[in-house]
Amino acid sequence: MESARAASQWAPCGVVTLTTDFGLADPYVGIMKGVVLNENAQASLVDLTHEVAPQDVRSAAWYLSKSWRWFPPGSVHVAVVDPGVGGAREILVAEFEGHAFLAPDNGLLGAVLPAHAKLWAVDLEAAGLRPLSHTFHGRDLFAPLAARMSRGTWPVVFSQAQQGVAPIDFPQPLRRAEGVVETEVLVVDRYGNLISGFCPEGDEADARLWDVEMAGKVISGCKTYGEVDTGELLTLLDSYGHLEIAQREGSAAQALGVGVGAPLIARRKNT
Amino acid sequence: MESARAASQWAPCGVVTLTTDFGLADPYVGIMKGVVLNENAQASLVDLTHEVAPQDVRSAAWYLSKSWRWFPPGSVHVAVVDPGVGGAREILVAEFEGHAFLAPDNGLLGAVLPAHAKLWAVDLEAAGLRPLSHTFHGRDLFAPLAARMSRGTWPVVFSQAQQGVAPIDFPQPLRRAEGVVETEVLVVDRYGNLISGFCPEGDEADARLWDVEMAGKVISGCKTYGEVDTGELLTLLDSYGHLEIAQREGSAAQALGVGVGAPLIARRKNT
Amino acid sequence: MESARAASQWAPCGVVTLTTDFGLADPYVGIMKGVVLNENAQASLVDLTHEVAPQDVRSAAWYLSKSWRWFPPGSVHVAVVDPGVGGAREILVAEFEGHAFLAPDNGLLGAVLPAHAKLWAVDLEAAGLRPLSHTFHGRDLFAPLAARMSRGTWPVVFSQAQQGVAPIDFPQPLRRAEGVVETEVLVVDRYGNLISGFCPEGDEADARLWDVEMAGKVISGCKTYGEVDTGELLTLLDSYGHLEIAQREGSAAQALGVGVGAPLIARRKNT
Repeated sequence: MESARAASQWAPCGVVTLTTDFGLADPYVGIMKGVVLNENAQASLVDLTHEVAPQDVRSAAWYLSKSWRWFPPGSVHVAVVDPGVGGAREILVAEFEGHAFLAPDNGLLGAVLPAHAKLWAVDLEAAGLRPLSHTFHGRDLFAPLAARMSRGTWPVVFSQAQQGVAPIDFPQPLRRAEGVVETEVLVVDRYGNLISGFCPEGDEADARLWDVEMAGKVISGCKTYGEVDTGELLTLLDSYGHLEIAQREGSAAQALGVGVGAPLIARRKNT
Repeated sequence: MESARAASQWAPCGVVTLTTDFGLADPYVGIMKGVVLNENAQASLVDLTHEVAPQDVRSAAWYLSKSWRWFPPGSVHVAVVDPGVGGAREILVAEFEGHAFLAPDNGLLGAVLPAHAKLWAVDLEAAGLRPLSHTFHGRDLFAPLAARMSRGTWPVVFSQAQQGVAPIDFPQPLRRAEGVVETEVLVVDRYGNLISGFCPEGDEADARLWDVEMAGKVISGCKTYGEVDTGELLTLLDSYGHLEIAQREGSAAQALGVGVGAPLIARRKNT
Repeated sequence: MESARAASQWAPCGVVTLTTDFGLADPYVGIMKGVVLNENAQASLVDLTHEVAPQDVRSAAWYLSKSWRWFPPGSVHVAVVDPGVGGAREILVAEFEGHAFLAPDNGLLGAVLPAHAKLWAVDLEAAGLRPLSHTFHGRDLFAPLAARMSRGTWPVVFSQAQQGVAPIDFPQPLRRAEGVVETEVLVVDRYGNLISGFCPEGDEADARLWDVEMAGKVISGCKTYGEVDTGELLTLLDSYGHLEIAQREGSAAQALGVGVGAPLIARRKNT
């Protein structure tokens, strides 16, 4: 059976997370929740974010990749940022480390999961699902599939695992020399913190070892915000494990006048 | 008994949806949820939207009318956009196709439900409810009533069904000639899609049959976004069944410089 | 046992409310919810607000102080506005009138609870909790503690009740003479209502007794919005019990060109 092949050990916990570019002003998110509750009244719905910029698949992949591990095993993570809605793109499903993932085939899942994770295309006909619209498959397809998965019913999938379209490309940090890493700002959060593409590991995972050169300044690495005075810039390890440039009780983005894509160099102190 | 007259077959499912103009920055929505959970710890609360513009009863009615059917039968739909709060206006309750509705008597429910749906005014005294404030009946009246309805207790109502105040007036599309419909933009969503007042039905419900004339342009009907190049305008059938003007991976509202109320003509192709 | 000393009668109801300055665009709130659900799958999570301005501890305290009583006894109220994250500040826990409170030691809880409420510092080592980051204790500490409290497990605390740092200072209204109160605007809500620091009590708690002098105008007290014409200013008692300056179907903040901190005088009519 196809479904057994795709996720033989799927044990749902009832949690369904939602990541979309729908915003919260329109009722699109609420409608998706209604559809989920129609199929599984016990589902526990959690918003990851709905403020992804319209069609910004890369940001959705980033947020989901940094978040899903914090949820209980058995969670279903649905991401609907779907510029190809209504076209021929597949809907992909994956099981990875006990979590389930559902997203359009636009590179999103490939960026969330490692290369060896298997992606499967959902057989919508076998699922008895036909979209009622060409514009809102979150309601017509993703919500009913997620609801069923949250009850334990894995969708029937086509028999060959998919590659999926090429995963979204996060700019990779570049080692220019021993202790010198060139990267850029990937995300700016609500506080104006600049989250860089450099995620130091092992012995290097201590912000105090690093200075960041950015926008003509050298910004020294610290362990916590409290080590500098209010209004001063600092570099620290953020909650995602990435090197981040922050301003104590202020916005580094504003203070430096930079945003997503701004280049920076991380340099080991005394290098 | 009054309550039996109003909804003899009310079978709640525990879902309570909330539609308000409270926004999410103030704690008003959270407080309403606290009051609901106080009376029904099992209630499943779903936000439809809280970003209705202050006192914009028409938009609230629009969003709720397009959303409620997607929820499970037995849901309680509470809409609190209430410019008359603290005054003499009634609180109306209705049961329609297994769903329950609760809103101030300001035309909102009349626009959500068909004319033959029966609206009843709640007897607050019989309910033992007295508002603690003149400004926040969402907390003082709507939340406790909704909580009780979600547990199966229909409120006692006055014995005559109400007409309610005149329903909110959505501008109706005008047939100027065979295959020529004059209408306007009713809603602009987060993507900048322009949702028109024309909801073609039957044979006509295929966007490919229609061109839209708007802001000096003719915008051709398509089935999906993918049929035009990125940045091009198109007309399509949106998820509400209305004719919508969109820009692929962009904002039609911005591209055309128009918003709610902008006039447009839908014309059958080759007419 | 320490934990017994802190809250001998703690009986949770499963509700966890969240008040933060995280906003809804980043996935921080969603991640906290994931962590809570990991430890208590039955937790009922309610957002109070996440739109507190970054590091604005005073506003967080204001919103929570006006909201917590509306939730069921046994609720856990978590407030994470935490400029000192990663530093030496304690995490405080309190039980008050059957509700539980959890917040960083930065004056927040002192402003929410009366002076006689006992605050305790959590023994993180005894709890087996070590922050994984220096920037996101909402995820690493507050969420697991809240989840356990929502299941009935009160954290082990240090044996001496804490004073906590000085509570946040809300500007107190000043009685200048019989029936003359000087105060200022504490909060502006989504509607542009100006919520003043004056909370009249007893016989005085009727807005019709008061005029407000503000921005060169005298604004008469009314019972409800409906007593003045659309666009007119009025003074009324808001849902928090504070004297509020409003504009019917408009924004008083905009009409008067004032905001938080603006001075005003409340004067008994005929005084």
